Amino acid sequence: MKRKSQARNRNGSALSSLSLAHGKRTRLFRLLYGHGPANGTLMVLPLDQGLEHGPTDFFLNPAALDTEFQFRLAVEGRFSAIALGVGLAEKYLQGYAGRIPLILKLNGKTNIPDDAEAVSPAFASVEDAVRLGADGVGYTVYVGSPRQDVEIREYGKVRQECERLGMPLVVWAYPRGRDVEAKGGKGTLYAQDYAARVAEELGADVVKLHEPAEDPGASPEPYRSLREGAAARLRRVVRSAGKVMVLFSGGVKQDDDAAVLRTVRLYMDCGATGVMFGRNMWLRDFDSALALTRRVHAILARCPR
Amino acid sequence: MKRKSQARNRNGSALSSLSLAHGKRTRLFRLLYGHGPANGTLMVLPLDQGLEHGPTDFFLNPAALDTEFQFRLAVEGRFSAIALGVGLAEKYLQGYAGRIPLILKLNGKTNIPDDAEAVSPAFASVEDAVRLGADGVGYTVYVGSPRQDVEIREYGKVRQECERLGMPLVVWAYPRGRDVEAKGGKGTLYAQDYAARVAEELGADVVKLHEPAEDPGASPEPYRSLREGAAARLRRVVRSAGKVMVLFSGGVKQDDDAAVLRTVRLYMDCGATGVMFGRNMWLRDFDSALALTRRVHAILARCPR
Amino acid sequence: MKRKSQARNRNGSALSSLSLAHGKRTRLFRLLYGHGPANGTLMVLPLDQGLEHGPTDFFLNPAALDTEFQFRLAVEGRFSAIALGVGLAEKYLQGYAGRIPLILKLNGKTNIPDDAEAVSPAFASVEDAVRLGADGVGYTVYVGSPRQDVEIREYGKVRQECERLGMPLVVWAYPRGRDVEAKGGKGTLYAQDYAARVAEELGADVVKLHEPAEDPGASPEPYRSLREGAAARLRRVVRSAGKVMVLFSGGVKQDDDAAVLRTVRLYMDCGATGVMFGRNMWLRDFDSALALTRRVHAILARCPR
Amino acid sequence: MKRKSQARNRNGSALSSLSLAHGKRTRLFRLLYGHGPANGTLMVLPLDQGLEHGPTDFFLNPAALDTEFQFRLAVEGRFSAIALGVGLAEKYLQGYAGRIPLILKLNGKTNIPDDAEAVSPAFASVEDAVRLGADGVGYTVYVGSPRQDVEIREYGKVRQECERLGMPLVVWAYPRGRDVEAKGGKGTLYAQDYAARVAEELGADVVKLHEPAEDPGASPEPYRSLREGAAARLRRVVRSAGKVMVLFSGGVKQDDDAAVLRTVRLYMDCGATGVMFGRNMWLRDFDSALALTRRVHAILARCPR
Amino acid sequence: MKRKSQARNRNGSALSSLSLAHGKRTRLFRLLYGHGPANGTLMVLPLDQGLEHGPTDFFLNPAALDTEFQFRLAVEGRFSAIALGVGLAEKYLQGYAGRIPLILKLNGKTNIPDDAEAVSPAFASVEDAVRLGADGVGYTVYVGSPRQDVEIREYGKVRQECERLGMPLVVWAYPRGRDVEAKGGKGTLYAQDYAARVAEELGADVVKLHEPAEDPGASPEPYRSLREGAAARLRRVVRSAGKVMVLFSGGVKQDDDAAVLRTVRLYMDCGATGVMFGRNMWLRDFDSALALTRRVHAILARCPR
Repeated sequence: MKRKSQARNRNGSALSSLSLAHGKRTRLFRLLYGHGPANGTLMVLPLDQGLEHGPTDFFLNPAALDTEFQFRLAVEGRFSAIALGVGLAEKYLQGYAGRIPLILKLNGKTNIPDDAEAVSPAFASVEDAVRLGADGVGYTVYVGSPRQDVEIREYGKVRQECERLGMPLVVWAYPRGRDVEAKGGKGTLYAQDYAARVAEELGADVVKLHEPAEDPGASPEPYRSLREGAAARLRRVVRSAGKVMVLFSGGVKQDDDAAVLRTVRLYMDCGATGVMFGRNMWLRDFDSALALTRRVHAILARCPR
Repeated sequence: MKRKSQARNRNGSALSSLSLAHGKRTRLFRLLYGHGPANGTLMVLPLDQGLEHGPTDFFLNPAALDTEFQFRLAVEGRFSAIALGVGLAEKYLQGYAGRIPLILKLNGKTNIPDDAEAVSPAFASVEDAVRLGADGVGYTVYVGSPRQDVEIREYGKVRQECERLGMPLVVWAYPRGRDVEAKGGKGTLYAQDYAARVAEELGADVVKLHEPAEDPGASPEPYRSLREGAAARLRRVVRSAGKVMVLFSGGVKQDDDAAVLRTVRLYMDCGATGVMFGRNMWLRDFDSALALTRRVHAILARCPR
Repeated sequence: MKRKSQARNRNGSALSSLSLAHGKRTRLFRLLYGHGPANGTLMVLPLDQGLEHGPTDFFLNPAALDTEFQFRLAVEGRFSAIALGVGLAEKYLQGYAGRIPLILKLNGKTNIPDDAEAVSPAFASVEDAVRLGADGVGYTVYVGSPRQDVEIREYGKVRQECERLGMPLVVWAYPRGRDVEAKGGKGTLYAQDYAARVAEELGADVVKLHEPAEDPGASPEPYRSLREGAAARLRRVVRSAGKVMVLFSGGVKQDDDAAVLRTVRLYMDCGATGVMFGRNMWLRDFDSALALTRRVHAILARCPR
Repeated sequence: MKRKSQARNRNGSALSSLSLAHGKRTRLFRLLYGHGPANGTLMVLPLDQGLEHGPTDFFLNPAALDTEFQFRLAVEGRFSAIALGVGLAEKYLQGYAGRIPLILKLNGKTNIPDDAEAVSPAFASVEDAVRLGADGVGYTVYVGSPRQDVEIREYGKVRQECERLGMPLVVWAYPRGRDVEAKGGKGTLYAQDYAARVAEELGADVVKLHEPAEDPGASPEPYRSLREGAAARLRRVVRSAGKVMVLFSGGVKQDDDAAVLRTVRLYMDCGATGVMFGRNMWLRDFDSALALTRRVHAILARCPR
Repeated sequence: MKRKSQARNRNGSALSSLSLAHGKRTRLFRLLYGHGPANGTLMVLPLDQGLEHGPTDFFLNPAALDTEFQFRLAVEGRFSAIALGVGLAEKYLQGYAGRIPLILKLNGKTNIPDDAEAVSPAFASVEDAVRLGADGVGYTVYVGSPRQDVEIREYGKVRQECERLGMPLVVWAYPRGRDVEAKGGKGTLYAQDYAARVAEELGADVVKLHEPAEDPGASPEPYRSLREGAAARLRRVVRSAGKVMVLFSGGVKQDDDAAVLRTVRLYMDCGATGVMFGRNMWLRDFDSALALTRRVHAILARCPR
């Protein structure tokens, strides 16, 4: 059945409404129609948690400390891409080059200092991505941080490099910083909705967001008074992202497979282009993870874009 | 009748007193005499609110979340230009290229942190504007911010690029920051008048200002003791802008069409080159907005520059 | 009589002791012997107050808000040069090019934040000055500001560009910042004398200083104990500037013409190369201002350099 | 016997799993198989303590103040490389060039200010390393410092230069700063384990770490509850470094040679690629130091990589 | 007798142990063997006090305000070099070019703000030094300042330019900042000894230090417990500077000539390469200063390097 949906969408309809330079279109096509579900949806395996959270995240599944685990999972689980930083890419890509597209994550930081004035510095460049044969770059923008001027200015240079080199740009749009906290926190609909729009305004091709939560009452109006269910909230942020393709994050690991799958289905029903599930994939043992990817594939196959 | 006023002004008299490089003159001519009222006045549709304020601004008219709305309105409402950032330009310009001039807004920020030390970082360049076929760039300068040195220095580089590439420079001259607040706030005549002059001194071609309000008594002298009516205040800031063409902002949406039109007439009577009305346009349903643009056109047609 | 003094000094004696690159010598000669008194003295009309202080400064003479006023005054009053920023230069130079030398002021700021940590950012470059046919650039250095490291570093780059492009460099050496205030304030002999020396050490060609006032008792020794009259103080700072030509500022407007002229005479008697009088010129009505310039010319004509 | 182990490993097996550019592979081969134990292990003599701690460190052995001491020791003790800054390299390398590989340490700072916001500025470049014929560069990253954004951004540029010039990159991954202190301090398993992973994520070829200590109870979970012996802790951080080769630091001088050797053996048994012992080497008198190196060689010879 | 010592050392033995690029060797040779004592010792006349301290320093000898004074003294007193900034160099070098080597001081600041977070910005470049025919550049490094990262990073770029252009680098290694004060102050043996080592580690060719004073009891151990006489302290810092040639500063003016000469003798006996005496030279009347230089020459002549 996947074959069919693939056939149905090999024309790249998800890109038809976008004015893209040749290189960017080629690479996006490869991500959307050349790998993974290959029907215009995306299933990305991220691995930047080792930098962002430290080895802590791997305690549940020590095998995942070895990046071979994720590369094997990405290939055998037929992901659209693996998203990681230059250190992991250079050390582990070798055996998998050509078999799994790479989204090179360009910036990052540790979580040792708190996030009150978060800013994520780049330690790799779009040229690194080209050199490594990547089909996209990833860049975190801490939406609403007191140091947003540093963040946005640096982002702007990366965006221009992407333009120059025809590289798709995936923005991790993360509300963050003391003012975000004062307005209800990073997970609220207010924060995620703003982040979605920021990604569009700043020129992302794809945006990674988190599922928006109910507002705890500290959000600015009109969000504070809004009473919307989970699906309505998801649809809202997808709409706010405009023509930017939305990937929802998997967040912390959930043991209940069925719940994970219900979440994926919900995301796709609400207009997402796909999912970026890391810990919910690679914190399972390999075979369980693989089994889960198959069931996610089944869902995505029913949602050609 | 519009035809006539157009005929009367096709000679570009508004530019005759300006010494302009060829590219800049060509592009300004296109904005002033090639599109919109085409009589030396300007009617610009801005759309940077999604970045500056978040999706909040669109709640009144959800249709406006889709940038096609503004592009259609800009074209059908015969605006002089649409002003927006690189993300929206790249995603939506495609179907409208050549039909509506673009003013590419180069910098911006969210309103999540407060404005005590406001600074607006650039995330696009004058070269982006050239690449996209724009006829101008927009740049926010937070006049009087404690971080004005960062702001002005960056502005200076953009200005030089505009010079080099023949690109008209529209400055959003916004008084902002804790010291502006201590001196009466961003809306006072003192603040707007200073902003107008700053735009001239810094080399803007066009400046976007807000209608100056009465001083609440905290402005420095001689402003504090000044007792001037709305028209006198407007004329004063237009005069302070010198040869820089002044666009007044529409600010928040006003439901009363007649009041909006009275305001436009007042602006034009007081010497403005035109208006930059965003929310007061695209927060109406499409047909009402279009109807309103026609009535604004009628006013501007009577004020050839 | 002016003709004579001009004849007497056409040899450029004020430049004879200086080792100057060809371009710099040519341009300085033009300022000193080609325009204005043309006898090695300088009479410069500055117009950066609109940026530095806002339109406030023009209330006394609204006609001066229109920069044509100053350009006409500079030409008809036979000034050595007009000193202003790129915005005013580009908009008003057109009709006067070749008739009045330009000193392009490269940096500036508003006075909305206080000066405790003053720094003056550049918004134009030496290349702008070349492009506009200027015969000099102006650059403010806030001597003693807590952020002097930013200031001096940026100044250094401008100085090197001046060297490369043969452009004379006029330094507005302004003591400023909380530490200057703690040591008696910006106007004291201590502060002005230090500023004069800083200009020499940093490589200025011409320095603009203020008349040094008596120390109020807060200056460091030996200044605090010094008891010197106005003339001795002026001679001291001229001496501290070494081979850098000193222009004294006119400061706020003084109504008494005779007093203004006495001041000019005192400055010249004490070794100044000339004066930089702005508000004391252009805040008078045009004819009075013109009459005053003639009397200043008479004084300068008696002081060939 | 060393000859044999050398023979056994001349094939460069430690590099076989790495995808390396030609220059980097050549230089790493030289470090691992061309000098020192020459069996895939590393024994590096560092000398940056004079900058990092001042001459204080040399009081125990004043002879070591003369860098000839360390160069002679590095050559006669058959180290894999000597690691020091550009000042020492340029002044002392002359007599030893070709006889001992150089790892040029690019950044550093004094310990006069405390480390609450530690950042280590570069004062040499990868091009300096090339010019001096170095086989690697060293770069300190203060993991978790509040100023990690400055640190990581600068690191990123050095990393790219290493890529461009084929230069192996040895990262001194040092947890540091007030937040590290608040979470148990720089020596804990939590901190060292995070540092190891950061080095891998950031793209180090080799990482220098300290032996992880027991957590004093302030580390985040799951580290706080972990009860692991010294060997288990060492193995953990080696595992967290992935394919990055780990060198453990010798730290302060220990008088008991047997204890030092037990430590080396433990490091190697736990998977280290080698050791970077400075003070534990050059704070002994020359002959004792040389004798100690021989015994370290004996241990390393038994651990071909 | 000077002739002899010169003959004895024309072979440049002080440079024989150094690996130097051709340009650097040529220029250092000129300083050490081509001018001044010409026997491998150095006698440098510095003049940066006007920037660093203001005109205050010249009150004792107003004639010294005119830089001709120092240039004449440098030439007639047969100094090895004069060390000053670009402003003074460009204005006064003309008449002396070729007769006295120039060490161009690249950075500097005023002493108006205190030194708690001292940083010294560059306002000239190594290319300026080349253009002016200098035989060296001078650069202040505030060792231990809280802003050492800015300082060291900028220094690093200057060092690389020196390498590229073959320019000797003289480091003014000045302990400074609030942490230095907390540890006993800038003049202690601890501080000067650390500064000496920092100069060596950072790659200086020559370092300017101050005579180390007894520690007042606030220095870190082992310095606090050290009881060493003046000569032992001097020898210690010379040793800590390694192959970097040490110049000791004269500091404030001392009236007693014999005491000054005893100090010079002590410095040379303790291994200094020479002295950098400014105020102790140019604050005397010209003939006394000249007489003093002759007696300093006599001392240096007995200490060929």
